[in-house]
Amino acid sequence: MSFLQAEIHQQPQVLMALLDRETENARHIAAELRAQGVRYVILAARGTSDNAARYGQYLFGAYNRLPVGLATPSLFSVYKEPPRLEEGLIIGISQSGRSPDIVAVLEEGRRQGAPTLAITNDPDSPLAAQADYVIPLHAGEERAVAATKTYTAQLTALALLSCALGDDPDRPSTNSEYRLAALQRVPLAVERILDGEEHIAGAVERYRYMETCVVLGRGYNYATAFEIALKLKELNYLIAEAYSSADFMHGPIAVVGSGFPALVIAPDGKMFDTMRHFTLEIKSRGAELLIISDRQDLLAEAVTPLPLPEGVPEWLSPIVAVVPGQLFALHLTLTKGNDPDRPQGLQKVTLTR
Amino acid sequence: MSFLQAEIHQQPQVLMALLDRETENARHIAAELRAQGVRYVILAARGTSDNAARYGQYLFGAYNRLPVGLATPSLFSVYKEPPRLEEGLIIGISQSGRSPDIVAVLEEGRRQGAPTLAITNDPDSPLAAQADYVIPLHAGEERAVAATKTYTAQLTALALLSCALGDDPDRPSTNSEYRLAALQRVPLAVERILDGEEHIAGAVERYRYMETCVVLGRGYNYATAFEIALKLKELNYLIAEAYSSADFMHGPIAVVGSGFPALVIAPDGKMFDTMRHFTLEIKSRGAELLIISDRQDLLAEAVTPLPLPEGVPEWLSPIVAVVPGQLFALHLTLTKGNDPDRPQGLQKVTLTR
Repeated sequence: MSFLQAEIHQQPQVLMALLDRETENARHIAAELRAQGVRYVILAARGTSDNAARYGQYLFGAYNRLPVGLATPSLFSVYKEPPRLEEGLIIGISQSGRSPDIVAVLEEGRRQGAPTLAITNDPDSPLAAQADYVIPLHAGEERAVAATKTYTAQLTALALLSCALGDDPDRPSTNSEYRLAALQRVPLAVERILDGEEHIAGAVERYRYMETCVVLGRGYNYATAFEIALKLKELNYLIAEAYSSADFMHGPIAVVGSGFPALVIAPDGKMFDTMRHFTLEIKSRGAELLIISDRQDLLAEAVTPLPLPEGVPEWLSPIVAVVPGQLFALHLTLTKGNDPDRPQGLQKVTLTR
Repeated sequence: MSFLQAEIHQQPQVLMALLDRETENARHIAAELRAQGVRYVILAARGTSDNAARYGQYLFGAYNRLPVGLATPSLFSVYKEPPRLEEGLIIGISQSGRSPDIVAVLEEGRRQGAPTLAITNDPDSPLAAQADYVIPLHAGEERAVAATKTYTAQLTALALLSCALGDDPDRPSTNSEYRLAALQRVPLAVERILDGEEHIAGAVERYRYMETCVVLGRGYNYATAFEIALKLKELNYLIAEAYSSADFMHGPIAVVGSGFPALVIAPDGKMFDTMRHFTLEIKSRGAELLIISDRQDLLAEAVTPLPLPEGVPEWLSPIVAVVPGQLFALHLTLTKGNDPDRPQGLQKVTLTR
């Protein structure tokens, strides 16, 4: 078994360990941040971690009512003209904790007196050293170049923090304990997807000679679209482009013709009707649909349905919805006879400035 | 002549008219915003306008030291769980001013008491109606589906506002009048690129059967990479994906093999050395390079050099650097025998919720 496949299968255990070991820490961090009166959040990340940041943007916006911006690291590292950050919470997300441009954002945040948080798999990394607070991922060493378990762990760490920061008295649905209970059930939902691996391994054959595709999601699963597209690119050297379905309508939909493959992520929730309408629109233009969803009515529209277990609330769905995409990318690689652990031209740690 | 070609050629006049008619208005808006003590900026936009927003993120961050976030419109329109915005400046950018999800962001900003600004070609639009301040683009009707003159006008409007907000006494380079003078010279630089149209019309032949490519920029020209990729998609039904060169290194670079076409935007400035290093890296991996730059040493590395006039400062380079990309996309369409004014499957105004 490849490292990649093993690490995909470690995810339920990794997520459970993270929840067990970091819930108290997240509460402690949240209490300190509340005392400091954070007004907005800046997230700094690259690659897979940047996709986790996209999830954070929706999560902290919707549940914690915090405006969230994704950092422009080059303003810190190359231009050396950083914005004022005093009133923000600066979060750096990085598996290795070593990319200099991400470290530079936290360094500047700290210099300006803003609270800084590192979410990383290496609590001894330069990123952690620049942070007032650290949430370690406890994912164990990730040996495959393509990140899987550290991605779902990053999402889980963000969800933990959002729960701990939570409790808007005007909205009972934001109650921390209620949300934490739902989060505790996520590792089991991931387990159930892994049980369906054989179905996915059989489905990839059809896509052996696919050269391009688009991956589409919106809202919470905008992040999932980007992360699945990245796995397809890293592991299969495909041109796989991710879009918000709304942005896709504003121009790029022009590429969709007969047989054009489109992987749609559309779990049940507030975004579902919008995504269903969009999916039927691209189907009418001839798209070949691959659909990740827990809604049978939508899965029935797909050439290749990739079902999710029911019962995961939408705000947590990105942690489970990425898993069929990870498995799809893995098995497509195996079908092509490529090495899933050492994709051509990539290294595990990328140091950008 | 197509509308598209005519509108590309109208750009110098459009930008001059905008500078002539809106400089005082921008100063007035900036004075009011300074009095209100804005702490951060949220930009809401889709499609081409969202690429203008990406430029704004660097501009307001570097010169006005404001943290900038790109809005997540679905939190407003679909989830109806908007973040707190009281201390932000909310800017909506839209050619038509009619996309409901973008209007919803300004509506919520106004409801919460945040100052709102619309940058639009239609001062009678629903977006303008929700705004405390409007900067009209004065671009005249844009009849081609693919936006060109309204994009460079949006960039120019953002640059005007940044100049007017400016004046950090610690950094003389941020002096408003000095920056405004440089901005006044941009329309002429655009004119000079249009003079080189014939060279570009001759260069597109080689790419008649290109099916995929990547477009790469970073910092200020991150926006340019996205906008040129969007023109190639809208007009040529290509799979053209845009990346920050730093994000590209974190995974997607795996797709680059022998002959893979990469369009790089790398004008002179603080980002140049980083981009040159990156460009030589992908060249060593076999990429076929198309390069937009004012640096002869880098242009010499390209199969297809697309030169820029010298003397435009980096912070204004996106307004000129997109123009060779517009011309390239136009002439590639003509070479293919497609209609540049009516790309298949697109409408001029896209109403997303």
